Amino acid sequence: MAVKYLDLINSPADVKKLNIDELNRLCGEIREELVDVVSQTGGHLASNLGVVELTVAMHAVFDLPKDKIIFDVGHQSYVHKMLTGRREKFKTLRKFGGISGFPKRSESEYDAFNTGHSSTSISAALGMARARDLAKEDCHVIALFGDGALTGGMMYEAMNDAGHSKTPLILVLNDNAMSISKNVGAVAKHLRSLRMSPIYVKSKHAVEDFLARVPVGGNTASRFIKSVKRSVRRVVLPTTLFDDLGFNYIGPVDGHNLQELITVFERAKEERKPVIIHALTKKGKGYAPAESNPSKFHGISAFDKKTGETTDSGETYSDRFGKTLVKLAEENDKIVAITGAMPIGTGLSEFAVKFKRRFFDIGIAEQHGVTLSAGFASAGYIPVIPLYSSFLQRAYDQTLHDVCLQNLHVVFPIDRAGVVGADGETHQGLYDISYLSHMPNMTILSPSTFTELEEMLDYAINRHTGPVAIRYPRGSAQAESVSAHFEPERSVQVAEGRDVSIITSGRMVKRAEEVRGLLEKDGVSCEIIAMPTIKPLDKAAAVKAAMKTGRVAVIEDNVKIGGLGQMIAELLMEKDLNCKFKHFAFPDAPVPHGSTDELDKLCGLDAESICAEVIKWLK
Amino acid sequence: MAVKYLDLINSPADVKKLNIDELNRLCGEIREELVDVVSQTGGHLASNLGVVELTVAMHAVFDLPKDKIIFDVGHQSYVHKMLTGRREKFKTLRKFGGISGFPKRSESEYDAFNTGHSSTSISAALGMARARDLAKEDCHVIALFGDGALTGGMMYEAMNDAGHSKTPLILVLNDNAMSISKNVGAVAKHLRSLRMSPIYVKSKHAVEDFLARVPVGGNTASRFIKSVKRSVRRVVLPTTLFDDLGFNYIGPVDGHNLQELITVFERAKEERKPVIIHALTKKGKGYAPAESNPSKFHGISAFDKKTGETTDSGETYSDRFGKTLVKLAEENDKIVAITGAMPIGTGLSEFAVKFKRRFFDIGIAEQHGVTLSAGFASAGYIPVIPLYSSFLQRAYDQTLHDVCLQNLHVVFPIDRAGVVGADGETHQGLYDISYLSHMPNMTILSPSTFTELEEMLDYAINRHTGPVAIRYPRGSAQAESVSAHFEPERSVQVAEGRDVSIITSGRMVKRAEEVRGLLEKDGVSCEIIAMPTIKPLDKAAAVKAAMKTGRVAVIEDNVKIGGLGQMIAELLMEKDLNCKFKHFAFPDAPVPHGSTDELDKLCGLDAESICAEVIKWLK
Repeated sequence: MAVKYLDLINSPADVKKLNIDELNRLCGEIREELVDVVSQTGGHLASNLGVVELTVAMHAVFDLPKDKIIFDVGHQSYVHKMLTGRREKFKTLRKFGGISGFPKRSESEYDAFNTGHSSTSISAALGMARARDLAKEDCHVIALFGDGALTGGMMYEAMNDAGHSKTPLILVLNDNAMSISKNVGAVAKHLRSLRMSPIYVKSKHAVEDFLARVPVGGNTASRFIKSVKRSVRRVVLPTTLFDDLGFNYIGPVDGHNLQELITVFERAKEERKPVIIHALTKKGKGYAPAESNPSKFHGISAFDKKTGETTDSGETYSDRFGKTLVKLAEENDKIVAITGAMPIGTGLSEFAVKFKRRFFDIGIAEQHGVTLSAGFASAGYIPVIPLYSSFLQRAYDQTLHDVCLQNLHVVFPIDRAGVVGADGETHQGLYDISYLSHMPNMTILSPSTFTELEEMLDYAINRHTGPVAIRYPRGSAQAESVSAHFEPERSVQVAEGRDVSIITSGRMVKRAEEVRGLLEKDGVSCEIIAMPTIKPLDKAAAVKAAMKTGRVAVIEDNVKIGGLGQMIAELLMEKDLNCKFKHFAFPDAPVPHGSTDELDKLCGLDAESICAEVIKWLK
Repeated sequence: MAVKYLDLINSPADVKKLNIDELNRLCGEIREELVDVVSQTGGHLASNLGVVELTVAMHAVFDLPKDKIIFDVGHQSYVHKMLTGRREKFKTLRKFGGISGFPKRSESEYDAFNTGHSSTSISAALGMARARDLAKEDCHVIALFGDGALTGGMMYEAMNDAGHSKTPLILVLNDNAMSISKNVGAVAKHLRSLRMSPIYVKSKHAVEDFLARVPVGGNTASRFIKSVKRSVRRVVLPTTLFDDLGFNYIGPVDGHNLQELITVFERAKEERKPVIIHALTKKGKGYAPAESNPSKFHGISAFDKKTGETTDSGETYSDRFGKTLVKLAEENDKIVAITGAMPIGTGLSEFAVKFKRRFFDIGIAEQHGVTLSAGFASAGYIPVIPLYSSFLQRAYDQTLHDVCLQNLHVVFPIDRAGVVGADGETHQGLYDISYLSHMPNMTILSPSTFTELEEMLDYAINRHTGPVAIRYPRGSAQAESVSAHFEPERSVQVAEGRDVSIITSGRMVKRAEEVRGLLEKDGVSCEIIAMPTIKPLDKAAAVKAAMKTGRVAVIEDNVKIGGLGQMIAELLMEKDLNCKFKHFAFPDAPVPHGSTDELDKLCGLDAESICAEVIKWLK
């Protein structure tokens, strides 16, 4: 087998040694290896295929780690990882103990800033750039982000701040006209008009050069000349949103043309003010199945390299949620559905087609999505806004201030609640009970079976009033062990027992049953009480359990602080029940990537660990 | 005394009965009454003086409550309240049991949506507008917001969504070039350029009319004509940020010219797509002291109507924070300070002058502010970002995702923590312990005296690493009852006692001392343990107290769920200490406006109520 250029790259310095032809070949090799590895590990493929040339060009021009690149969202950092001494480890991508699918400062000095959620890159880059200026250092700070990130409001907060400050800063807009699914909104439309604009970098440059030659003095006449200049610029060059925000706009450039990219980056290095480079790319570039279906290959599980086929993992909670919502919407025309760029991920695809007028994709804009929902609710509609747990937290204030304080009827299906696995610490849905339970008027439900999810959704939409969250885990449901029908604020006696009472909810009901089985072998009799309603707490059930067995163990798929267990502990203290108490939950520390089973075990939440703890406790 | 036009206004219908001269006189009367009342009650004066004509014109043109007006932030809704049947009650503004300083659906059918925090209005309005369209109803939805609101990212999320959707919606930009202090950023600069633009509504209208006459077909040639039209428009009319975002921009118009406003609003009613009306106003208009110092009169306590003088309320926590930070920054040049449009409110005025290069006002953009801080910290600087408790919650995700997961050294002074008083439910700082305590790596401190604040700030900046929050209340500190020096993670024995252990923190240390005094009269001996460090908990101290007296009462200035008391309760359960427990905290319900004393009492947190509860508990 011939030696690959990729074999020669041990650090970014080696990228700089290759000429343009060699770099182009390198890009081909990178694509091959990306498809190879991700077909085995799963991960974000399409976006990485789209940024191969962008990443190689950045490493050819900029000098890391002195220069800093911040990868917005960060799922497009695979190529960067391969070029910064992590090619060997790349096979362990997203595996427990392996390298992360996102930039991590703890993993490499070439990773300048951890990301995971969208639209943070300009803010972080501006902080670094200002620090550089204060320290009188000399380096470049680059933020690389997609057009999807521009649907997030933080980007405008940051551009508003950066655009007037004259701090040198290089923004690279990777425009593939896609967010996770097709990108939405007025900005996307604006970008399309720029894409189609016949003006290119060079002609823009020529105009600017010409204008620069017209001298401007410091008096009234000069103000007039300046204004004429502005007018000329406006006639000849399209003004962009970014110009309005104080940036020097360069583009559009071909994001798969290495030479063009290198030229533009070299020029950006010379600028003494914030610039934005608008690069056009194709999501999934170079791998046919991903090019033709970039949404599917945005985040994908292991697949067949030849065909691009994944093995069907069975029905998920998201699927069941989507199906149920369609059924309910057929009968209730007040239901509207809102998604933050995740129609597929959250199971809304069918709803989107069947109820086009009642479906709203608002982009990666959770804050707006929640307050939009509040607006709908105040006008008598019933908004349903499914968000991943770690993304709903981006709308904490809107949920509290706009929905809960007004006690508006908004339904929050919380997908990917609890530990999520391979995406790791930035995506863990381990905080939602803690950040929602103290909001006035909020009801929190959590199903342990598909049937319960259906019943809860029906209840939340058709019988509940006020804000209501339904949290369910990533992936499939377990066996239907709970047969009782859902009743709000009522716990379910899943199993009887004498020695210990396990109180639990959602995904952990199944775990409790495993624990119970193990304990039985040790002669310990254990009752299980499921709490499908987490808030308001079924106090009577908790008290009854404490009085019956004198030992309450809470198992939950949330961090310990602010979780269900803490609410129960306080209740038991206040009721002055002299009972014993244990709390099994995720620790007060970031939880890394790995499989759900591995992470449960890491945190002492597998059946064996819990059982061992309980046995020790009983002695 | 002559009859006033204001006496004739019992509902908006009465506004419509007046001619333009009468309406102008009405505006004068409203201004007089605004100054009269607010000089006695305190409140947001300058912004209301600025929107008198805007509000009167809206009521003259639109038909409430069928049409909906959403007041962004909502502190500029006083005139609206006076015109919608609440003139009599207006004297009770911001008083306990009186009318709120913000729009409240519970207060009037003319208040379409509750507000309090910035930049939510377009989202809410779009939800209502879409609901209207789905229901095939016919009404106008108007969002009124200031230029300061445009520094908040949610506005762009909402404009991105609204601008491409063609949903009729009327945005009214009240541009006074001020946020709370002078407005900042690239958008403010863009607005200034529009302000100075010679193009007025009429000429713009003429151009549009002309262009509308050029026919456009459906073929390729028509695309060319469309493009020519765009070019002509661009040459003759300035393109604005809002045009780029898909809005029909109308302006600038004189926001104090009733006739002009009425004409423009009438025209906006006819539009079948989203429009934005850019009105220029003067904050504080018509009252000389407010015109010359609008920041002071933004939110003001009672003042002398003649002179505009307020009585000095003494040094506040914010003042002491500001002074201390200046002292520390003189010795540590790595300190940078960041404010979200609140240099005065948070006590940063002196810092801003003394350390101009290290001071950053980023606008009402808490999300960006926190991640900007993370960027600074990752580059070795020590960012200090004082925010009000209810505004830090707008950056929940950034605090968790960008700061805490990366364990970056960012200092969060939390001003207005705990109950805040007259601003009411949207401004209560009652949630920060609950929303911060479950974030990994976060340390939470709370001083009970000025000295303790100084020592904590020094510690947080110079000796701590990682994220650290320091929460302190609005207003002045109590007497310096705690003499011990601050030591991290160490509680302070404030008073000895045998029968009950009170564990508390911050403002409530003083309350505990009052309770102790009352209990003593009843022969109950009570120890007080202050916890200047709320997280990590001084577990040993809590356990020791429980073992000593067998009765732990926690008093805190936070909601009960997720508060300090709940953490202590769980600790005591886990330690299997058979002790009794009581938790005095704010309830799981919105807490209205009133004085701090009144609200404490309402929630059973005054010394008498707590004492009575404890006596009952001991029996």
